[in-house]
Amino acid sequence: MATTLHHLNDSRSFRIAWALEELGGNYDLVKYHRTEELLAPEEMKQVHPLGKAPILVDGDETLVESQCILEHLSQTHDGQFSANSTQARFWLTYCESSLMPYMVMGLVLKTAAGQSPKLLRPVFKKFVDAIGSAFTGPNLKGGLKYLNDYLAKHEFLSDEDQFGIADIQMEFAIFSAVQSGVDLKDYPAIRRWFEAVHERPAYQAALTRAGR
Amino acid sequence: MATTLHHLNDSRSFRIAWALEELGGNYDLVKYHRTEELLAPEEMKQVHPLGKAPILVDGDETLVESQCILEHLSQTHDGQFSANSTQARFWLTYCESSLMPYMVMGLVLKTAAGQSPKLLRPVFKKFVDAIGSAFTGPNLKGGLKYLNDYLAKHEFLSDEDQFGIADIQMEFAIFSAVQSGVDLKDYPAIRRWFEAVHERPAYQAALTRAGR
Repeated sequence: MATTLHHLNDSRSFRIAWALEELGGNYDLVKYHRTEELLAPEEMKQVHPLGKAPILVDGDETLVESQCILEHLSQTHDGQFSANSTQARFWLTYCESSLMPYMVMGLVLKTAAGQSPKLLRPVFKKFVDAIGSAFTGPNLKGGLKYLNDYLAKHEFLSDEDQFGIADIQMEFAIFSAVQSGVDLKDYPAIRRWFEAVHERPAYQAALTRAGR
Repeated sequence: MATTLHHLNDSRSFRIAWALEELGGNYDLVKYHRTEELLAPEEMKQVHPLGKAPILVDGDETLVESQCILEHLSQTHDGQFSANSTQARFWLTYCESSLMPYMVMGLVLKTAAGQSPKLLRPVFKKFVDAIGSAFTGPNLKGGLKYLNDYLAKHEFLSDEDQFGIADIQMEFAIFSAVQSGVDLKDYPAIRRWFEAVHERPAYQAALTRAGR
């Protein structure tokens, strides 16, 4: 059965490339590029109606949503991935349902303020900063502190304390946080874990083959 | 083993009250109220460090994140809830990871614009509307259309087409969409499903006991 990853640059689909490399790298890769407006291109809707990355076509199943795809790969490659513990399921869910939305909101607001008419930019920046101080900032910091406290006591994000799909899921969130200016020196346990997962050969292979 | 739901008004924890009523209503309820800033009160952090609703304490486990709690209840009450099909897992995840973030972003922006200094309000409203037209609006509409297309062919949100935790998860998203002005006459299949799930005795029992 053929496995094809529909991959978009600078998106969550890097996770699936990495997971597939962890499982031996036996997959086809179709690359897409973001439009000038930084959106997924229209042609992705021909693969799945929602038109978002990642999309994994595995045999006759077409799967979307990082969490669903990672859980699917975990189930179809029994034992190769830590996935089903309560802790792993918490981190898988928390990442996309709580942590990432704060980050995406912050990024969308910053981009919108930056693209606004030059004269209005300072006033929009103030507006965006106020939302950051009241809502996105405290929630993001709270989430990173909670993760740091956890990783100060554990090597990886599962009950068995073994590398697995929750680590792959969460790496993208931390990568995004760093890109948007979060300094990991404030979160030493996250930094230790972040550097450790980047040393994995499968991570490096995904970088080379799919790219971030 | 005692089961306690820590419930916050106007939040996702209504889902868990509803699920627990579907399972017989054998749980304790602790009610919390949003602060004037519409946030969860600080005291919720004493139950779980993230301080967000819902929190379910089930025996010696303290669980957060709607999806994790619903999956836990499904696993501990085998067969009473449709949950583990690919389709149910997709809707469970899509709801919180993709659909809700667009809605929350729309709501936060609308609230922030409404609370801004009166003189600047029209210009912030324009800024917020521009983000709505370019990002949150199209994504929300795309998601609702996709759900409507699915429900035009299925009664409920699982492969077995039986009521289950994915329906409970998604009801909150549709409830929120309606609250924020989405007219379900544009989505007749969603409206049919929305009215059907509201007729369930457990939904009515959760309304009476926990409140939305």
